Amino acid sequence: MDVRTDLAIESREMYIKKHNREIDGVVAEEEREGEIKFTTVKVKNEEGAKKIGKPIGNYITIDIPEFTVYDGGIMDDVSKVLGKILKRLINLEKKQTALVVGLGNWQVTPDALGPKVAEKIMVTRHLEVVMPEVMDDTVRSVCAIAPGVLGITGIETGEIIKSLVDKVKPDIVICIDALASRHIERVNRTIQISDTGISPGAGVGNNRKEISEKTLGVKVIAVGVPTVVDAATIASDSIDLVIDELISKVSSGKEFYNMLKDIDKSEKKLLIKEVLSANVGELIVAPKEVDMIVEALSKIISNGINMSLQPDMEMEDINKFLN
Amino acid sequence: MDVRTDLAIESREMYIKKHNREIDGVVAEEEREGEIKFTTVKVKNEEGAKKIGKPIGNYITIDIPEFTVYDGGIMDDVSKVLGKILKRLINLEKKQTALVVGLGNWQVTPDALGPKVAEKIMVTRHLEVVMPEVMDDTVRSVCAIAPGVLGITGIETGEIIKSLVDKVKPDIVICIDALASRHIERVNRTIQISDTGISPGAGVGNNRKEISEKTLGVKVIAVGVPTVVDAATIASDSIDLVIDELISKVSSGKEFYNMLKDIDKSEKKLLIKEVLSANVGELIVAPKEVDMIVEALSKIISNGINMSLQPDMEMEDINKFLN
Amino acid sequence: MDVRTDLAIESREMYIKKHNREIDGVVAEEEREGEIKFTTVKVKNEEGAKKIGKPIGNYITIDIPEFTVYDGGIMDDVSKVLGKILKRLINLEKKQTALVVGLGNWQVTPDALGPKVAEKIMVTRHLEVVMPEVMDDTVRSVCAIAPGVLGITGIETGEIIKSLVDKVKPDIVICIDALASRHIERVNRTIQISDTGISPGAGVGNNRKEISEKTLGVKVIAVGVPTVVDAATIASDSIDLVIDELISKVSSGKEFYNMLKDIDKSEKKLLIKEVLSANVGELIVAPKEVDMIVEALSKIISNGINMSLQPDMEMEDINKFLN
Amino acid sequence: MDVRTDLAIESREMYIKKHNREIDGVVAEEEREGEIKFTTVKVKNEEGAKKIGKPIGNYITIDIPEFTVYDGGIMDDVSKVLGKILKRLINLEKKQTALVVGLGNWQVTPDALGPKVAEKIMVTRHLEVVMPEVMDDTVRSVCAIAPGVLGITGIETGEIIKSLVDKVKPDIVICIDALASRHIERVNRTIQISDTGISPGAGVGNNRKEISEKTLGVKVIAVGVPTVVDAATIASDSIDLVIDELISKVSSGKEFYNMLKDIDKSEKKLLIKEVLSANVGELIVAPKEVDMIVEALSKIISNGINMSLQPDMEMEDINKFLN
Repeated sequence: MDVRTDLAIESREMYIKKHNREIDGVVAEEEREGEIKFTTVKVKNEEGAKKIGKPIGNYITIDIPEFTVYDGGIMDDVSKVLGKILKRLINLEKKQTALVVGLGNWQVTPDALGPKVAEKIMVTRHLEVVMPEVMDDTVRSVCAIAPGVLGITGIETGEIIKSLVDKVKPDIVICIDALASRHIERVNRTIQISDTGISPGAGVGNNRKEISEKTLGVKVIAVGVPTVVDAATIASDSIDLVIDELISKVSSGKEFYNMLKDIDKSEKKLLIKEVLSANVGELIVAPKEVDMIVEALSKIISNGINMSLQPDMEMEDINKFLN
Repeated sequence: MDVRTDLAIESREMYIKKHNREIDGVVAEEEREGEIKFTTVKVKNEEGAKKIGKPIGNYITIDIPEFTVYDGGIMDDVSKVLGKILKRLINLEKKQTALVVGLGNWQVTPDALGPKVAEKIMVTRHLEVVMPEVMDDTVRSVCAIAPGVLGITGIETGEIIKSLVDKVKPDIVICIDALASRHIERVNRTIQISDTGISPGAGVGNNRKEISEKTLGVKVIAVGVPTVVDAATIASDSIDLVIDELISKVSSGKEFYNMLKDIDKSEKKLLIKEVLSANVGELIVAPKEVDMIVEALSKIISNGINMSLQPDMEMEDINKFLN
Repeated sequence: MDVRTDLAIESREMYIKKHNREIDGVVAEEEREGEIKFTTVKVKNEEGAKKIGKPIGNYITIDIPEFTVYDGGIMDDVSKVLGKILKRLINLEKKQTALVVGLGNWQVTPDALGPKVAEKIMVTRHLEVVMPEVMDDTVRSVCAIAPGVLGITGIETGEIIKSLVDKVKPDIVICIDALASRHIERVNRTIQISDTGISPGAGVGNNRKEISEKTLGVKVIAVGVPTVVDAATIASDSIDLVIDELISKVSSGKEFYNMLKDIDKSEKKLLIKEVLSANVGELIVAPKEVDMIVEALSKIISNGINMSLQPDMEMEDINKFLN
Repeated sequence: MDVRTDLAIESREMYIKKHNREIDGVVAEEEREGEIKFTTVKVKNEEGAKKIGKPIGNYITIDIPEFTVYDGGIMDDVSKVLGKILKRLINLEKKQTALVVGLGNWQVTPDALGPKVAEKIMVTRHLEVVMPEVMDDTVRSVCAIAPGVLGITGIETGEIIKSLVDKVKPDIVICIDALASRHIERVNRTIQISDTGISPGAGVGNNRKEISEKTLGVKVIAVGVPTVVDAATIASDSIDLVIDELISKVSSGKEFYNMLKDIDKSEKKLLIKEVLSANVGELIVAPKEVDMIVEALSKIISNGINMSLQPDMEMEDINKFLN
């Protein structure tokens, strides 16, 4: 029941809420591009890293405006902001190669974001051999893979990526992943981009191993969207809320006040277990229209990545290419 | 936040828990077929109907054994029990016609059960014209439709069915529907069969109108499986549980005891709203593998219905027919 | 092996090729909207109808530019042309209702065009009751259904539509259907719009009954795209071509010339049967990427229909509505 | 227009038809298991290999009985025969590992056979770490991957597999692939198993590189089913047939006879191009129900592979495992 989140912005918020001040070694800055707000959380040193629970590096969070997935125009705007942020982080030379990795399980809708993005990436690496004439200076060499998940392949996803990186030798790896959020209101409404790769334990299927420059030997950009909340989080939040509410109603120091303050983690865990008693597999909370939303998000993100990797091409030409 | 459930067996349990006795006008009986338990709740008169909140009639609940969806053998066993129960309720003459209606939205996985069953029904009604030679005494005339949902058609589902029933004049209508359960442990683990049709407000999309002998002029059998729990239910249960826990810890009559007892519906509603604050659409709780599970359930149910409607055919012949 | 085609423009071409002149009672006119060409074939009287094999009425054929499905911009252009053509044919009063019918089988990709369009229609009819405040003068009442196909429902599709029309009483019906073409080069490259409804025998599944003003009592607009060619057509065309080639090589009147001229239908049928000997179900010829193409076409057509039915709304607002 | 086929049995038939005798260095033997016939073509030396156009090795072809995909019982029988044949070829030690590779593109239905099989394989390799207690002597270590196709990944499929094999070091690789057949009647009705891996140019997408013991350093078993015929094959066959028919009607040596004999490849190619003139992408011929059929075939094959790799487990236990 530890408060685990894949989002640096949430970790920071929780720290600030608890300690009433910014984390030492962390700075945050908000920017805005038209209607779209994005926040950069910079983890600058080991102290900051320890306190926020994320490696040193940059974590940029885009707030996706409400109803974006129903509006092609705003979808394009978000793609453009994403493309711009990625360009800041990527910095490739003309003749370098990018490998895009769609993490997750395409058979489980809220975990299918990565594979759905991977299939919409403009891949060009093979054209160097097949059609070298189109691979002029304006076209970057890009390849993509959706390696599947451990339960379906029997192979650690990190192992698959590592073996491919050793073979293909890309100059950058971009991983896309569905995340778990702490807060319902972030579900499908936030894109996090970081230059630190994938931390252990992140993602909807929470057994992931680290995928980073340390493990792969090449810079790793991670792009993630929280698509679910764990059902236990809802239960836990509900319990916290009612307890806070009760605490606010009684004077501090009183017997009942102390009792409320005393409810500890293990007791809470038991209560949550009772609510979610059933042996029906991992329970997730998601909006009913999750299929449609994940499809729309995959378009936003693949467009953003394509724009960042092909800075000399127009969106239109990229789309024509993508037959 | 009223305790609403589509399952008669849950309504009865809640009544018994609260009043410590059986509902007047309701009798329940458990049976067993091999490993599979099923319970018949008979609502015998208006008093029972009022107290249980369901019309007079029979409600049979099959408990689906754990791991059934991973085991073709047990799936067949459950289909057979379902077929047997349906045969008890159906009682058609040789030359009569059945209309199977798959309710729900096939684009929303946990609501797609009905349409998925409808597409696996052995339909034969058209053969009377096209291939009359196969329509001997051993083959019943069956037709099937998945009418969609109000938000996609703009037409009340009941209206569509009514207009079809007026045209096709079936002797029985069998409706399949995904339900909402009160309890996680019933999700995908219970099949409810009733001879009273669909009550107002039932189903995952909870705006359904009544579909019954009264509205259609022909007997309506309803087959339903709870495939989700409302996220608000999880929140509500969590809050109830922590309050019950606290109440058990303090002496009755004391100030805090009274305060806890006093927390009323509207206050609870506000807390739940705060937990589920986000404007991200209707939130549902479901197992991660919901796609696979709903597919398996649709096979179990379509097999059961096919066996009940074609009592003179072997399972094998039905499957051969279903090209 | 009769030369059957669902496209009036193909029937006319074949007549002209054979008789070297326009059909009496038929006039054709080409127009152009930017890059997009469309042709109106007007069947003016019974003589024309008999010779072209289509009822009296208007048949407009849009030529979809190459690579349209890979280019969102051109897709929008085609939608706009379609919307404009439909507006010419529709002419509804403010308070009148349209019913959109997606014909075909969504489980068979090249036949799924109709259902895929239906699910993207902006339906509003139910809002008159649920949210009357949004149903002002700028919003037309629209409903939509995908009734399935005979082999899956056991009910004639025309029966289902007729029963719905009697209930819902729309002022116009718009049917969308996947067609069979005579010519590979028309596959996925042509939209035919007509104000005469669906003729018997049209469509990919070629057993359709008539759906028209005569059978429904209300004007019927048909929108169709050829998505496949029958494999027998390829075989037949190949045989014709080689025979024509041989005929061109020998002098008329000679023994071989007469022999070639003598190859009759029944002989050709036998040859085709031999090529397509296998008992492997109905064989169709389609591009490998048929899944992606049909999805794109369904967007083009649904956009066009939505624009024609909601002339007072912007595309953007329609998209926002379509959550 | 060369007669290319992925099936050794077809190559042999064509040779025998042309030369009226068995190929030197090739022997063939028919066997039968209940209703199911299978034929082993053994290519014994370089002479045989050259003439049949396939490497030295064993090619076993199972004839799938008609209507198998509609009958779970026969599906199981075919799986068992496949399992038995695979066991003959595999011969692993207890502690050795198998890698199953699903070739092809899951977005293109007739090419999705490989990925669909891969997702139904019982993978266990990861359990050695996660749950070593279940990995007793009765359970073989198995992993699986669906690497995608060149056009989607930008990486040669062989490169991906090679890099994984170097990392995972399996003792055998089993590749599943959708093939192209020369004959409609073999489509979806034939399983070819060979111990020579994948030859260059095989498969529905016909640009594959070799995947074999030579390229991977480990034995490669290939399992393939023809799921389509090229549209050009239909055209070509039709032309051949009508020419043969005409030849049979005229006396040899006559002018017309000689003309028919003279029609050469380039002329035929032009005719075929004219029939299939359109620029609408690669054209394939497949049964209308291809989605359903490929799903059924993937079950047959995955069951067969699972049985061959887990000889100490019952089918039932494998299915239970496959959650």
